[in-house]
Amino acid sequence: MGQLSSESGVAVPTIKYYQREGLLHAGVLTSPTQASYDDSHVERLKLIRALIDIGALPVASAKNVIAAIDDPDLPLTWTFGVAQHAITQTVSPPAGSDGSGMVAVHSALDAAGIRVNDENPGLAIAAGVLDSYRQLGHDELAEIVGEYLRAALIVAEADLDAVASRAGRGGMAQTVVVGTVLGDALSAGLRRIAQEHVSNVRFPAPTDARPSPRFHPDSN
Amino acid sequence: MGQLSSESGVAVPTIKYYQREGLLHAGVLTSPTQASYDDSHVERLKLIRALIDIGALPVASAKNVIAAIDDPDLPLTWTFGVAQHAITQTVSPPAGSDGSGMVAVHSALDAAGIRVNDENPGLAIAAGVLDSYRQLGHDELAEIVGEYLRAALIVAEADLDAVASRAGRGGMAQTVVVGTVLGDALSAGLRRIAQEHVSNVRFPAPTDARPSPRFHPDSN
Repeated sequence: MGQLSSESGVAVPTIKYYQREGLLHAGVLTSPTQASYDDSHVERLKLIRALIDIGALPVASAKNVIAAIDDPDLPLTWTFGVAQHAITQTVSPPAGSDGSGMVAVHSALDAAGIRVNDENPGLAIAAGVLDSYRQLGHDELAEIVGEYLRAALIVAEADLDAVASRAGRGGMAQTVVVGTVLGDALSAGLRRIAQEHVSNVRFPAPTDARPSPRFHPDSN
Repeated sequence: MGQLSSESGVAVPTIKYYQREGLLHAGVLTSPTQASYDDSHVERLKLIRALIDIGALPVASAKNVIAAIDDPDLPLTWTFGVAQHAITQTVSPPAGSDGSGMVAVHSALDAAGIRVNDENPGLAIAAGVLDSYRQLGHDELAEIVGEYLRAALIVAEADLDAVASRAGRGGMAQTVVVGTVLGDALSAGLRRIAQEHVSNVRFPAPTDARPSPRFHPDSN
């Protein structure tokens, strides 16, 4: 286990914890106090760390998505569902919601010819944001939901292209989980880049206005 | 202040806290112990609650973005920067990164003709995700970064359409902040919907496989 720790960069007590919690499969016992580990253990530890460190999943959620990867009978579509639930905070509609956000979401989906299960966690998230836009007097932001949906479909098609390029259910399921969990961060990062680009084109800052954007405090 | 509390749904001690922290402007003193508040206070309280409750901003970050809205001299492009920094976790590259993620990000941006400041917080986020994909043996996910970027540009153009539809710098700056902070959640929600839709089309689940996706534990 010391060797597994040095190869994976994960501390021994943490490895033991993952084994106890069922995230990491056991090694092959070579003596009562020794077990042997192979590449599959190193790979799995990398996956666990990526889900927790980059994907910010709690250990319990990481356990659920790993169980979904390892379940040979789980249809791929449901693997998406498990991964989505793992990364999705439960969202309550903002106080005073009149349900118009959910109506607006369904109207955008109808316009795009999309039907999903009522339990899809994205419905409540999107409806909550649209409710907030209206409550804050920003209807102009609610009106661009169709463009956001168009972008989401491009991302989802690309996600499924990546899944389809893998051979075998295990690899495909892991692509579903990794792409779903880390892809939100990729989208958010690229959105910041695209915003700067588009806003520079449309609203060029006067070159003599301020010495540097660093002037502004960054709270992180 | 009791009336402001009942109109906004925010408790009096919380209102006092926001005033001390500089998120909410003072009322007009009508006597040594009485102040009068108007619609601008109710609106501001709604905005603060949306940033904190829906956008999950810490109070210090909410304070920064509100200062950016209220600063009449701040160019709109920099208002985006302030909002982006407020919602962006600092990201370290995964251990053992060889810098190939950042190379891949710049290569995707070059292909799209996009140039941004090195300080754009999206660069490190996107590079970290691409590093992780490669380390996990999921190059097929790194290869779809161009499609993610295409989607991000659609979202950014829509964001700027919304900003441009507002009259006056104050309203535009608030659209920047609200759209940037809450728009990530909208994108993430719609991505879950689009994934279910596209994966149902491409990988239909056998109808007799399992009784219901509810069978799988949802850890949230």
